[in-house]
Amino acid sequence: MEITTEMIKELRAATRDGVWDCRKALTEADGDFQKAVDWLREKGMATAAKRSDRDASQGAVELYSHGEGRVGVMVEVNCETDFVARSEKFRELAHEIALQIAAAAPQYVTEEEIPAEVLEHEAEIARARAKEEGKPDNVAEKIIEGRVEKFKDEVVLMRQGYIRDESLSIEKLILQSVATIGESIIVRRFQRWELGESLKD
Amino acid sequence: MEITTEMIKELRAATRDGVWDCRKALTEADGDFQKAVDWLREKGMATAAKRSDRDASQGAVELYSHGEGRVGVMVEVNCETDFVARSEKFRELAHEIALQIAAAAPQYVTEEEIPAEVLEHEAEIARARAKEEGKPDNVAEKIIEGRVEKFKDEVVLMRQGYIRDESLSIEKLILQSVATIGESIIVRRFQRWELGESLKD
Repeated sequence: MEITTEMIKELRAATRDGVWDCRKALTEADGDFQKAVDWLREKGMATAAKRSDRDASQGAVELYSHGEGRVGVMVEVNCETDFVARSEKFRELAHEIALQIAAAAPQYVTEEEIPAEVLEHEAEIARARAKEEGKPDNVAEKIIEGRVEKFKDEVVLMRQGYIRDESLSIEKLILQSVATIGESIIVRRFQRWELGESLKD
Repeated sequence: MEITTEMIKELRAATRDGVWDCRKALTEADGDFQKAVDWLREKGMATAAKRSDRDASQGAVELYSHGEGRVGVMVEVNCETDFVARSEKFRELAHEIALQIAAAAPQYVTEEEIPAEVLEHEAEIARARAKEEGKPDNVAEKIIEGRVEKFKDEVVLMRQGYIRDESLSIEKLILQSVATIGESIIVRRFQRWELGESLKD
């Protein structure tokens, strides 16, 4: 895969590492952004990405609703200092995240939050479907894996494509802000409610 | 206890029953509003109060935050029709309920939602305290009961005193709106988040 200047720029913005390191990381990761970040972290780099491990307890509980209150979103976005929490950049990011949740209806913040049985269930469906389609076993496993990954892209906020730019994941969007703002930013929790949905249970 | 005209007026607004029935109910209930409503319902009256048993799936997910996003509230308030959901009266009520939750931090909508072990725990504390204070057993039981009731008044939204008029419970406030609006109104669910609180767990 060709490593473009644009890809290197994105990785640099997120990790604050040098051009050479970023190009190397992207080459090793075959152009995969997240794997490239992981590669840099394994090498003790990716300083901006590491920041998100620091304790972040400031920030804002951001609210957003649309459809005259038919959908409501509450999301807690944390940063490290009250100063940043009050900044326009942080407020804008928090608003965009709330908007994303309202529009794209994720179910989890990170993929670690998906219960194992939910993933197993998805894999089973994919397995049954591959069998139905008469795929040979060696191909089926790849297909199943691919469908589970696609499922994660849909339900995990961090993996979703940003509604204003599908090529940018929410994780990347946040990492860019981490690099600009210089503080750890964490989406702690969110709730997305639709009117009347709880009556369906 | 003296039954005032004001008390009868309040009960009439909430139940839509006649003056005579309301006076009788309040006398039987020794002036206790909720008990008077129950008494009327047992007699097959309290039509407005009964309305809240009907299915209400319209309404709004109302949002409110204060302290520049340090506290966020999301509450779903249901009514029966979209027409009422869009009305100013309903919107005002939903806003007041969100405000109440932000300010008075209830933990449950109704007392039925309090887990039995939480109530037992409160009773145990009250029991230990009564013993500590050297209260005789016959008095202690009354005191324990009183303290558990007080606990419910604090943590149950429906039993809390309305922040703008402590003499009016939220349940009463809503029943008044039910009578005015002529539709069932139900607080379905709420969440109240404070910045950083989830880190304390």
